Amino acid sequence: MSQLTVALDMMGGDHGPSITVPAAAQALSLLPGLNLLLFGPQPVLSPWLQRVGLSDHPRVRVYHCSQLVDNEHKAAYALRHLTDSSMRRALDALARGEAAACVSAGNTGALMAMAMKVVDRVPGVDRPALITRLPQNNGGYALLLDVGANVSCDAGQLVQFALMGEQASRHLLAQPAPRVALLNVGAEANKGTEAVRQAARQLAAMADFRYVGYVEGDDLFSGRADVIVCDGFVGNVALKTSEGVARLLLGAGRRRGLLWKMLTFWLKKRLSHLNPDQYNGASLIGLRASVVKSHGSAGSPAFLNAILQAVAEVEHHLPASIAHRFDTAPQDSHAR
Amino acid sequence: MSQLTVALDMMGGDHGPSITVPAAAQALSLLPGLNLLLFGPQPVLSPWLQRVGLSDHPRVRVYHCSQLVDNEHKAAYALRHLTDSSMRRALDALARGEAAACVSAGNTGALMAMAMKVVDRVPGVDRPALITRLPQNNGGYALLLDVGANVSCDAGQLVQFALMGEQASRHLLAQPAPRVALLNVGAEANKGTEAVRQAARQLAAMADFRYVGYVEGDDLFSGRADVIVCDGFVGNVALKTSEGVARLLLGAGRRRGLLWKMLTFWLKKRLSHLNPDQYNGASLIGLRASVVKSHGSAGSPAFLNAILQAVAEVEHHLPASIAHRFDTAPQDSHAR
Repeated sequence: MSQLTVALDMMGGDHGPSITVPAAAQALSLLPGLNLLLFGPQPVLSPWLQRVGLSDHPRVRVYHCSQLVDNEHKAAYALRHLTDSSMRRALDALARGEAAACVSAGNTGALMAMAMKVVDRVPGVDRPALITRLPQNNGGYALLLDVGANVSCDAGQLVQFALMGEQASRHLLAQPAPRVALLNVGAEANKGTEAVRQAARQLAAMADFRYVGYVEGDDLFSGRADVIVCDGFVGNVALKTSEGVARLLLGAGRRRGLLWKMLTFWLKKRLSHLNPDQYNGASLIGLRASVVKSHGSAGSPAFLNAILQAVAEVEHHLPASIAHRFDTAPQDSHAR
Repeated sequence: MSQLTVALDMMGGDHGPSITVPAAAQALSLLPGLNLLLFGPQPVLSPWLQRVGLSDHPRVRVYHCSQLVDNEHKAAYALRHLTDSSMRRALDALARGEAAACVSAGNTGALMAMAMKVVDRVPGVDRPALITRLPQNNGGYALLLDVGANVSCDAGQLVQFALMGEQASRHLLAQPAPRVALLNVGAEANKGTEAVRQAARQLAAMADFRYVGYVEGDDLFSGRADVIVCDGFVGNVALKTSEGVARLLLGAGRRRGLLWKMLTFWLKKRLSHLNPDQYNGASLIGLRASVVKSHGSAGSPAFLNAILQAVAEVEHHLPASIAHRFDTAPQDSHAR
């Protein structure tokens, strides 16, 4: 990895610097070419930075911010009034080109609104989408989007998500010809909402695109598709439901003896990719630069993963490849 | 249990009589007061009935039908043209009062459309909903609705589902004061679609109703609510996603040695309620009589469970209790 700078919102998420500072320190020691811009209130950050030896690190610059975005803030309020928040300032640095990517564990709605205003979208993209990886039965990964940036979507947006997801699969997971599916309540053509059925018709008609039809919830892990597209409400519920099942099982294992402890250990390993603490980082894609959203309630390993994911996206030129795809895809396929 | 008659669509689901006939035989031997009306083409049913000794059973009557509803049929087509199908004839028997409940593993859309036309709704209910049970971390169950009868819902429908779910929890799960929640993408008041937010305001304003706010996907199994309400697209994806996670884990267990076989055994037990083959039966509630939808791809134990569930609903007078609730609830709470 050559030299590369990432802007971090140090105050997002439920735990703030107690999570973000140790993750930043670990990322710096793992990646010798990484530079970090840290955004947050200096008095709050300083003791944490001192503790892990980042107070005077040559590859770290700290920017004092006087405001915070919390989960109760509405996106519109945050956009208008929290212009000196750690989230906004980190995105500003990204927009000015001082950083190549930005990571935040903060309020998703505010992050989405600010990123759209400050960072700007790829031409042809109406709304960015949150995309995440899901483990598959065959040992690989599929990508799911949108997992929460847009609670309702029309057909045109779903088609755009399909194009963005295809590029992410190609560049981040090295799938040469990703199979793209729409998430629905049945496999038959007449199933689902009008938006999903209309998106299906548009995707099926696209040249140079491997649309494989509808998949259902139980196909999220079956390996039947490399990219699975849905609106943000459905994707968010599906993702959190799988976390819930994981917890249901781990909770049951805790109550038993040695055999069950071993079992829990195995389950934990198997479920780690459904566990927000280890597997993490949903990317906001469709923007001109990489913005990674870390899980709000997750720990330090998750925030580290989100930083590494941001680095990977920069190194694989994901935003540029999406821009190129929208530039060359037939106009009618993503027109509203 | 006193005498009680259930109408069975013998031809629904992926496997038809090979599944439904053994389940019928088992239900009859378990419940001495049960009478069954079996609907399907006589030439197809006969050999199966002979095999399990039901050809001349005193508590069985077989009704020949000349048509079938399959999964490719659109609801509107089935409604208009498949009036001699096993599904329709079973519902007709329910509507005429010859049976107290009906069970089918067939096409959900067709079942919904036919049931609405033939069986009629409880006054005040715009659309019936599919409701199912989910295992909870605390060992109990929560009810989730809608899991697929209505792909999109307005606020008024979600409020109606909440009232129906409350009655189902009270009468089927003996919860004296069920905690009712709306499924959403976050806990904050500003999250979600307009329909969900509006339903939240209406439920919060209702007297004699225990609305506990929003829950997220990972709360489907956490024990935080007794009834969880969402539209049918979201509920269907959530339910099938949990089945998918279960299969992801069981699939992993299959590849290992003895210890992992034990583990798989335990997992199977733990996951049985997420497994369509053992745990099953989503009820179409909001109708004047009980209609239970068995999982299309499930086996004989699942169809048996669906029959037992239909019997339980009749014995607990679920349709009448929902009618009573809609009769006494303040008019504005469920008005459109």
